[in-house]
Amino acid sequence: MVEKKMIALSSSYITRGGVEIKKPVAAYEEYGNPAGPVIVLCHGGLSNQHAADVTLADSAPGWWDQLVGPDNVFDTNKFRILSVNALGSMFGTTGPTCINPDTEKLYGKDFPYVTMEDHACFLKQVLGDLGVERVYWAAGLSMGSLTILNLAVLFPEFVGALTLVATAAYMTVGGMAYHNAIINSIKLSPNWNNGDYTGDEVLHAVNAMAQINKVYFTHYSLFEKITEGIHGQLERETAIDKYLRTGSEAYARTHDANSMITCLRACNSHNIAAGYHSLAEAFSRLNMPILVISVDTDGEFPPKYGREIADGINAHYPDMARHAIISSIHGHLGCVLEGEQLKTEMTSFKMKLDS
Amino acid sequence: MVEKKMIALSSSYITRGGVEIKKPVAAYEEYGNPAGPVIVLCHGGLSNQHAADVTLADSAPGWWDQLVGPDNVFDTNKFRILSVNALGSMFGTTGPTCINPDTEKLYGKDFPYVTMEDHACFLKQVLGDLGVERVYWAAGLSMGSLTILNLAVLFPEFVGALTLVATAAYMTVGGMAYHNAIINSIKLSPNWNNGDYTGDEVLHAVNAMAQINKVYFTHYSLFEKITEGIHGQLERETAIDKYLRTGSEAYARTHDANSMITCLRACNSHNIAAGYHSLAEAFSRLNMPILVISVDTDGEFPPKYGREIADGINAHYPDMARHAIISSIHGHLGCVLEGEQLKTEMTSFKMKLDS
Repeated sequence: MVEKKMIALSSSYITRGGVEIKKPVAAYEEYGNPAGPVIVLCHGGLSNQHAADVTLADSAPGWWDQLVGPDNVFDTNKFRILSVNALGSMFGTTGPTCINPDTEKLYGKDFPYVTMEDHACFLKQVLGDLGVERVYWAAGLSMGSLTILNLAVLFPEFVGALTLVATAAYMTVGGMAYHNAIINSIKLSPNWNNGDYTGDEVLHAVNAMAQINKVYFTHYSLFEKITEGIHGQLERETAIDKYLRTGSEAYARTHDANSMITCLRACNSHNIAAGYHSLAEAFSRLNMPILVISVDTDGEFPPKYGREIADGINAHYPDMARHAIISSIHGHLGCVLEGEQLKTEMTSFKMKLDS
Repeated sequence: MVEKKMIALSSSYITRGGVEIKKPVAAYEEYGNPAGPVIVLCHGGLSNQHAADVTLADSAPGWWDQLVGPDNVFDTNKFRILSVNALGSMFGTTGPTCINPDTEKLYGKDFPYVTMEDHACFLKQVLGDLGVERVYWAAGLSMGSLTILNLAVLFPEFVGALTLVATAAYMTVGGMAYHNAIINSIKLSPNWNNGDYTGDEVLHAVNAMAQINKVYFTHYSLFEKITEGIHGQLERETAIDKYLRTGSEAYARTHDANSMITCLRACNSHNIAAGYHSLAEAFSRLNMPILVISVDTDGEFPPKYGREIADGINAHYPDMARHAIISSIHGHLGCVLEGEQLKTEMTSFKMKLDS
C-alpha cells in the first residue's frame, strides 16, 4: 500500500508576489528505490498526488498507474519516484483548507495568490528538503506539466529531462476562458459569501462545475461512445445524464472551492516568457531532452501549443525536443486515460535517456 | 421599426405527448411584402424571433440582419417573411413564463414537456392561422434548423425549400451532454425549489450559464482574437473576464430558467428517424432543394452531422442537397456571426430556387 507522506518544510515559502506562507507542509507519495536517481511526477490542476498504486493494495487507482512499476516506464526497481501535491491544492499541501499559523484559522479565501512559478519554486523547496539534489526526469500532465516546465526554465541545471503531457508554454486563452467561466459560476452562488463559506454551502456549485468539466475536459466522441447502440433520444439523455452525475457529488465533497480557484488561477498565470525578453529566450534555457505529448481532441491544450514548445526548443538545440500527438475520444482527459499510447511514447524517450 | 406581433391560435395545441395547451399564443415578427410567397425564419434555442430589423430603426440588431432586406437573400420586396417565437420559449409565445388558463397562475415548472416535433407542429398551426398555405422557403439556425427540418419531414408538401444552418438529423450527443450539464447546474442552485422560484432567485444560475455558454458555444480561436497583442497573463485574464461578464446579468434577466430548460430538452428530443423505420426513410421524405451549412469550429453541431443530412438526402435524390462548411473563429455562434459567408452560400442556393 502506498504511504501518504507529509513533510514540514524547513523554512517559510515566500511567494513571488511577496507573501510569506509560514510553516508550510507538503503532501507527497513516494515509490520505488530510495537510493535511485529521482523522478518527479506532477498532477493536474484539480487532481492530487496519487499518481500510482504500485502494490495495487490501495482502493483508488493512481492517474498514471499504467506507467509506474517494476520495469515500467517509471521503473520502481531503479528510481526514487516522488509525486508532490501542489501548493494551494486541497490534498494535504498548504492551501486554503489549512490552518494559517498566524491567525490559527483556516486560510480559506485569504490564501495568497500563487502563480505557476510559485508552484515550481515551492516544489523545488520541497524536493530540497527531501534531499533531492537533482531530478533525473520530471514528468507531468496538464497543470503538472506547467509546473515542471517552469521548474526547468527557472532551474535548468536541476532538471535532467522533461516530459510534458497536455501542455503549453503559456496558459492557453481558451482554457483561461473556461477557468474564468467556472470560477465566476462558483462565485455567483448565493452561498459564496466572498469565499467565507462553511460546511456544505457551496457543494452545489462545485457539483455543477464537476458536471460541466465532464463536457469541457472530454470530447463529443466520448458521448458518441457512451450512447453507442442506443437509438432513443430519451435513453441517450438518460445514459449521458448518468455519466454526468456519477461521482459529481462525491467530487464536490473532496474538492474545496477556494483551493480549486487557487489552482485554476495559478494555471492562468502560466507563461514561461514572463521575466525574459521573449519566449525564445525562455526556450533557450531548456538544453535537455524533452518529450511533449498532446492529445488530438484536447480543447484545453490543443496540439499546436505543444508543437510550439518542441519547435521553440529545437530552434536552439536541434532534435532536443520531440512532439507526439496521441489520439483519444477523451479530449483533455486523454492525458490520463490513454495509458498505452503514453507508455509507447515515453518508452522510446526513456531509451534515449538511458543510452 | 419592426412591429412585435402576437397571434392567439384558433385552437388548443395538443402536444405529441398528449397534453392540451389551451388558448396558446405565438409571438412573431413579419417583414416584407404581405402578398408575396412566404419565407419562414426560425431562431436558435436561447434566442428569439427578432431575426432582423429591416428599417434599422430598432435598437436591437436582428440575428440575421445581414440577410434580410430589399434585394437581399430574404428579399423584403418580394417575400412575406415570418419569424415565429418557439413553443415554450420566453419571448411571447406560450411557455413557462405565461399564465396557464386552467389555474390562472404561471405555468412555471408545470409547463409540459415539448419535443422538437411539437415545435414543428405548433409552428405549422401558427402559420395556418396566419393564412399560410405553403412555405416557399424555410431557413433556420441551431434549434430553428431542427424545427424546420422536422416540419419538412412531417409535412413535406408544405415546405418548398430548406436551409439548415448549424444542424443535425438528430440532436448531437455532445450537445445533449452540454445541455444536461447546464440544466443540472441550474437545478443545483439552492434557490431552485424544484422550479418554483420567484423573482430574481435563480438569476445567478442563469448568469453563470450565460458565461459558460460563451466558452462552449464559441471556440478557442475567439479568445486568441480577444487577447491579440496582449502579452501579460493577468491582462489576458482581465480581457477574457470582461468578455464573459459583459451582458451576462442582463441575459439572465431576460432568460427564464424554466423556459431555457424547456427549449434545451426539446432540442435533446430531436430525431427525425423517430417514428420511421430508419433515418434513410425520414430522408426519403425530403424531396425538395436543401442547403445545409455547418461551421468548421462548431462543437455543438460538428460539420459531419450536417454532411450526414446532405448525403442522406442525395442518396434518394441526387444533387438535391448541398452541404457547405463555413469558416469561423466563433464556433457555434458562427451561425449568426458569419453573415457574409452565409449570404454567399444562400445567394447561390436562392438563384437555383428562383430559376
